[in-house]
Amino acid sequence: MNTRVSRLREKMAEAEFDAYFVSTPENRRYLSSFTGSAGYLIITAHDAVLATDFRYVEQAGRQSPDFRVHRISGGPQWLPELIKELGAKRIGFEAGNLTVATYQRITKSFGEASLDDVAFTATDGLVEPLRVVKDADELALLTKAMECADYAFRTVAPTIEVGETERAVAWRLEMAMREAGADGPSFDTIVAAGPNAALPHHRPSDHPIGAGEPVVMDFGAIYQGYCSDMTRTICLGPADETFREVYDTVLGAQLTASATVEEGMTSGAADGIARSIIEEAGYGDKFGHSLGHGIGLAVHEDPRVGPNADDLLLDQVVFTIEPGIYIPGWGGVRIEDTVVMDGGRVRSLTTSHKSEDPRHTG
Amino acid sequence: MNTRVSRLREKMAEAEFDAYFVSTPENRRYLSSFTGSAGYLIITAHDAVLATDFRYVEQAGRQSPDFRVHRISGGPQWLPELIKELGAKRIGFEAGNLTVATYQRITKSFGEASLDDVAFTATDGLVEPLRVVKDADELALLTKAMECADYAFRTVAPTIEVGETERAVAWRLEMAMREAGADGPSFDTIVAAGPNAALPHHRPSDHPIGAGEPVVMDFGAIYQGYCSDMTRTICLGPADETFREVYDTVLGAQLTASATVEEGMTSGAADGIARSIIEEAGYGDKFGHSLGHGIGLAVHEDPRVGPNADDLLLDQVVFTIEPGIYIPGWGGVRIEDTVVMDGGRVRSLTTSHKSEDPRHTG
Repeated sequence: MNTRVSRLREKMAEAEFDAYFVSTPENRRYLSSFTGSAGYLIITAHDAVLATDFRYVEQAGRQSPDFRVHRISGGPQWLPELIKELGAKRIGFEAGNLTVATYQRITKSFGEASLDDVAFTATDGLVEPLRVVKDADELALLTKAMECADYAFRTVAPTIEVGETERAVAWRLEMAMREAGADGPSFDTIVAAGPNAALPHHRPSDHPIGAGEPVVMDFGAIYQGYCSDMTRTICLGPADETFREVYDTVLGAQLTASATVEEGMTSGAADGIARSIIEEAGYGDKFGHSLGHGIGLAVHEDPRVGPNADDLLLDQVVFTIEPGIYIPGWGGVRIEDTVVMDGGRVRSLTTSHKSEDPRHTG
Repeated sequence: MNTRVSRLREKMAEAEFDAYFVSTPENRRYLSSFTGSAGYLIITAHDAVLATDFRYVEQAGRQSPDFRVHRISGGPQWLPELIKELGAKRIGFEAGNLTVATYQRITKSFGEASLDDVAFTATDGLVEPLRVVKDADELALLTKAMECADYAFRTVAPTIEVGETERAVAWRLEMAMREAGADGPSFDTIVAAGPNAALPHHRPSDHPIGAGEPVVMDFGAIYQGYCSDMTRTICLGPADETFREVYDTVLGAQLTASATVEEGMTSGAADGIARSIIEEAGYGDKFGHSLGHGIGLAVHEDPRVGPNADDLLLDQVVFTIEPGIYIPGWGGVRIEDTVVMDGGRVRSLTTSHKSEDPRHTG
């Protein structure tokens, strides 16, 4: 049986579950390698079942040799029948994923099957902590996902011209990521120019990019399930003094955090390194989000990387470092790398240059 | 106040709720016009609140003038405070969307705020039935979404050559939809050639399309939130006898259903019209899915359109008609239009030709 399932079983034993019901898509894929869009895992100390419908039975058998594939159809009866067969009494489920409607259907089906002695218990985070430290296979896929995004920046950024719309640039970045082998964008691509750049989650509009405006481009690729995430801010034509000061402050914070964050540090301390630089420059209240986030099968996952977060940054943890400064009415600057803790220090998976000049070739 | 909210209030009164908590993204957008990715609606007989975080407050004010925008941050205290202010006692929530974890957080926050006399009750489908009959604005957006997909078929299909991979064709369809103005694909584009066409939900692979193989292309666009969905099956080069027979059977079933389904018919009866044609041709057990599904803000929504469904097909209901035949090892054929019930009869929003010859210009 694979080591990921073995590690989950240790967690189950600690939590005193004799079965665990997995419904979160990323957790399903992580444990079983099954890539289909529908299915559940039911894991006990000695058994591992992947329950899915007719569309995916063949694929599941191929992708998940460590699991017994159980074909299910619409009704809820399959679960109590399986639970009876497995003899499980204390079953944990993922409260952050299961809807109240599904929960009610399942508990009703247990009642109808006279499984009144079964405890179906809400839990959170049994599998998520296992996903924080990446193995070599995962790091290879994350690197490839990052390469697709780096390729897009490298090929698109130098060709952006004054007057091109945010929407057109976003679409060109997405096309380039696909050209590079990505399965698609890992989240909705952000291209935000001028005052729009003051909104960290701006959606690309028909706003034509002006000379001298800050242009925030935040995007990433998905490759075989794994996500990348990067942000660069560029400026076409002469930048104003505000840009110069804000850009250099953000860049300083990003580079300093990347250079000084060490293995074993809490993510709150990492956040503090970048935040104190921005605070000292007088922009503390203009950096309204966390320094970053963990990334892997989900574009946002553990560890948390923000003020007061006490998650430990251990070797082979992958996360983003993305300080920003946002000034309403003017715009903003954000610079983001996806990085991995590697041999005690931060190593960036993102390799694109960090000049505001998109034609930079250094 | 907008008529959509008024109609929800009638439903709330029937269900004896004095407040309704909306968390499903499509329902949130339908009622409020707010397009942000995070937020909740709390609707009472006399008040309508849109609660969202700092990222979306300005946008919410602009897009949702009928709602009072309430700025929230991470903690759960905002809801009990708002409920106290509104004086609500019987609150319905959407069990099909809310997770058990969120439900637990909310009920805990009610307890901490001494709101022990408030009933927070799981419901399903108060807003969804309102969305079934489309208004003129929605029909215009659905038509536009369909035009993007039709454009893609019209421009890409005639240029597909033997040896091109499924994946390459899928990507060209998606690019063409964007060229036509789409915001993106409404679901993962399916291109399935040869034996892969026997799998209704095949994901595009590196399989090169062969001469004489059935090629199922199932795709759609999203435009300002509204989805389109169409399927065409083509064949490059001479088709075998199986193709001829299967294709003509599916086409006959699709055309007959489109021509004879009438306003007021149940969707189960509509399914039966197509299914009986396929059964009479001897392929009944090879049509393993429903005739179609409702479509709108979600690519799959009410009405159900399958065997035994008793949903009534009323005027201005939009749904798909997509019979198919799937033969393991050989392939399959599916032909799908998105249609609207218009003046008592079916009118297709999909306008692409239904010849297996992709260069057909009739």
